Amino acid sequence: MTSSLPQDHDWLERRVVRISDAGDGRLASYRNVRERDLVGREGRFIAEGKVVLNVLLSNPAFTVESLLILENRLAGLAEQVRLCPDDVPVYCVSRETMDAIAGFPMHRGILAVGQRSAPRSLDMLLETMPERALAVVLCGISNHDNLGSIFRNAAAFEADCVLMDATSCDPLYRKAIRVSVGAALKVPFAREGSIEEIVGKLQNTRFELFALSPSGTTSIYDVAPSPRTALLLGTEGEGLPKTLLQKLHAVQIPMSSSFDSLNVATASGIALSRFSRFSGL
Amino acid sequence: MTSSLPQDHDWLERRVVRISDAGDGRLASYRNVRERDLVGREGRFIAEGKVVLNVLLSNPAFTVESLLILENRLAGLAEQVRLCPDDVPVYCVSRETMDAIAGFPMHRGILAVGQRSAPRSLDMLLETMPERALAVVLCGISNHDNLGSIFRNAAAFEADCVLMDATSCDPLYRKAIRVSVGAALKVPFAREGSIEEIVGKLQNTRFELFALSPSGTTSIYDVAPSPRTALLLGTEGEGLPKTLLQKLHAVQIPMSSSFDSLNVATASGIALSRFSRFSGL
Repeated sequence: MTSSLPQDHDWLERRVVRISDAGDGRLASYRNVRERDLVGREGRFIAEGKVVLNVLLSNPAFTVESLLILENRLAGLAEQVRLCPDDVPVYCVSRETMDAIAGFPMHRGILAVGQRSAPRSLDMLLETMPERALAVVLCGISNHDNLGSIFRNAAAFEADCVLMDATSCDPLYRKAIRVSVGAALKVPFAREGSIEEIVGKLQNTRFELFALSPSGTTSIYDVAPSPRTALLLGTEGEGLPKTLLQKLHAVQIPMSSSFDSLNVATASGIALSRFSRFSGL
Repeated sequence: MTSSLPQDHDWLERRVVRISDAGDGRLASYRNVRERDLVGREGRFIAEGKVVLNVLLSNPAFTVESLLILENRLAGLAEQVRLCPDDVPVYCVSRETMDAIAGFPMHRGILAVGQRSAPRSLDMLLETMPERALAVVLCGISNHDNLGSIFRNAAAFEADCVLMDATSCDPLYRKAIRVSVGAALKVPFAREGSIEEIVGKLQNTRFELFALSPSGTTSIYDVAPSPRTALLLGTEGEGLPKTLLQKLHAVQIPMSSSFDSLNVATASGIALSRFSRFSGL
């Protein structure tokens, strides 16, 4: 489907709402996106870029409130506009207006405001798990880059869910969604309670838990995954709580003893690749 | 060794040079580090942070020109000052002066200016390779975050070298060094020529080449590494040149067909973990 035909152009023009005033109230949700990330958005989130928008528009669990498109990118984004429900406004602005609204030079040609669905409870999510399942469990991941990367890896290896304790950060922050390439809008997640509570509920639902830690005595290459496997990852600095490591099967990614430093998202990728059904185990 | 003893404090005070004028000529190499990254530094590089400095100070291949330390972090950095050769000046400044020199709020408490050694030629580097060797080969990696992360993974899995074509970016850029957690100062590298030239020289030195690509037909879990193994990685957008993929053994990290998107650094981590001697293969 090409967007260069005249009728396509007419259709696009009729579909979008052109706005030239950066102060227009309809654009309020897009204002100063960077600063407002820090204080939350009353149940809303911002999705940026074509690839992320494709994920958002294909997931019925989320409602799109509006799209905001740079005018010189409109023709190349006709497909996304088409995917957008008819009752959702599509705003179109100049680069000058876009930068004034966003509060910084915005390189992405398309933004959307989405509405969060009601947060999924851990219990509800665990009930939906299939008999063969792979869960990613995160304790105290507070960096949005790392969290987004972990979601990206979870989607690539088809993990069934990401479970976060309450001290982990929000996967629907703008930067986490962007770094996840949309995976934060795809992989089911829950974020509540303490890591001990999450571990208890996983054990009650027949998950075998593997706690990833440099102090683990078993190599990830020497263990066989169970039908239901949960991979636990802690922060880069502190790692998982010692009391927890003592109670669980701690496994390590075997590596150099003189440079035993992996980024936590990279560690998640290595372990997920190894424990996913794709590795042929 | 604790630095809280009075004699330690006296020693540190005698060792450092306190500077209060951000315009002082001795600090010229630290000025506007962020902007100057873009144009190179006449054979110099900037290393930031305690962990990176430890790597730099322990590698005799690099010469340290000077250190710059925030005054309120000095006591905690006594060990790094000790490791620094006696004839290398250690400057100490207030936060206000540090930020004025750096051109932005500088969170790291310690910086160093290092001197590059003469660039290692690919031929020289290949001559030093042991009989069992693991090489990382990069084509067109132009993002400093990705390059730094790949070096970090190369160090963690004890790759023997990183070979980059001329279109890949410089691993001694400030950000690449920082993201590598110092690995860019540890793992031997060469950066010259075309990817075809590098591949030819690897084949001439009995390396078996595995080109990592989503289009690869063999899973990384189904191949056995050779005594000398080279892993090739291309850019995230374009990947490796098609003409090259046709000539080489293309291998893939098996993953979801509906979300086949891994960050190139994460892919390097997964493949390195699998092909390194640590995996037990």
